[in-house]
Amino acid sequence: MSKTILDMSVSVDGFIAGPNETIDNGLGDGGQRLHDWVLPRDADGDFLESGPTGVDAEMKAAYQSVGASVCGRGTVDPAGGWGGDAYAGPPVFIYARRQPGPGESRWPKFTYVDDIAEAIGRAQRAAGDADVIVQGAGTGQAAIDAGLIDEVQLHVVPLLLRDGRRLFDLSPGAPLDLELIDVRQGDALHVRYRVLR
Amino acid sequence: MSKTILDMSVSVDGFIAGPNETIDNGLGDGGQRLHDWVLPRDADGDFLESGPTGVDAEMKAAYQSVGASVCGRGTVDPAGGWGGDAYAGPPVFIYARRQPGPGESRWPKFTYVDDIAEAIGRAQRAAGDADVIVQGAGTGQAAIDAGLIDEVQLHVVPLLLRDGRRLFDLSPGAPLDLELIDVRQGDALHVRYRVLR
Repeated sequence: MSKTILDMSVSVDGFIAGPNETIDNGLGDGGQRLHDWVLPRDADGDFLESGPTGVDAEMKAAYQSVGASVCGRGTVDPAGGWGGDAYAGPPVFIYARRQPGPGESRWPKFTYVDDIAEAIGRAQRAAGDADVIVQGAGTGQAAIDAGLIDEVQLHVVPLLLRDGRRLFDLSPGAPLDLELIDVRQGDALHVRYRVLR
Repeated sequence: MSKTILDMSVSVDGFIAGPNETIDNGLGDGGQRLHDWVLPRDADGDFLESGPTGVDAEMKAAYQSVGASVCGRGTVDPAGGWGGDAYAGPPVFIYARRQPGPGESRWPKFTYVDDIAEAIGRAQRAAGDADVIVQGAGTGQAAIDAGLIDEVQLHVVPLLLRDGRRLFDLSPGAPLDLELIDVRQGDALHVRYRVLR
């Protein structure tokens, strides 16, 4: 059974990016640290070809079975569209108010959709029996507010970033109960919740 | 060796109280749910005399060895000063800009201190070899900003509260690295970090 999973790396104080985000500083000041569990770096700051180990490697490997992904421009644009590919193959649905303009990259696997329910619905159809992964703060919040998230997978990095972009800045409303379904400790603490409805 | 520990129950989205906090609604709308792991309720909402079980009971029992506590008025006033006692005995240092005024309760074990470093220093001297527990969002933030917290103990409740008072709303500054030192799963996920300096 395909699930739609909000999947984010986040600091203990709830940030997914540091302050001063720009197109060239997409994770904000200090934000790259949030991804060290999946993209470890050496002392010079260069990515290690060997990648993560242990639990972190297992968590990274899970991305290989993603059937489609949904994210926002704040995720895809600073990443340069990952060269037109995310998770080595599956289609990417980008929740955005506008299509790419003249001079902006258009990648064949990317589809721009201005409605969150349509973006996730199209991703679910494309994914078939595989899971859909949802990423980004704005996109994640829109998907939660619309009741479209089945599970929340957090990679909690042992860091107080103090400032930046918060993962959870939801619209006021009735609290949502979660059920903790998995905890694994690596360089990050990987915590997975089911959204109860 | 005595440690100074920020200890808070918090929702997955980082709130320690729901919206609409008042003196009679000290945890805000829906906020009591954050304390169900330590003060479980029956179907009518009455506290169970039996208290928590398992891991949650172990975590609650740890409060019995607290040597002193530090909190703010936002914690102590809506709780009615816990009848003048917190954690069954040890002194309470209240970080507040002003002493209680005429008509406000004064409890013999409570000392009002308007400087965070002095509040924690006095608590540490009172605690001797026992740990000092720090509670409250404003008090916790002031203590972290002042570099006075050794460990952060979070009781993460499986809930998206969506709105309310955030635990972490720190002053901008250099990120603080943490080290995960304990994870235990009960009704809440109990996660303890050491602050690296």
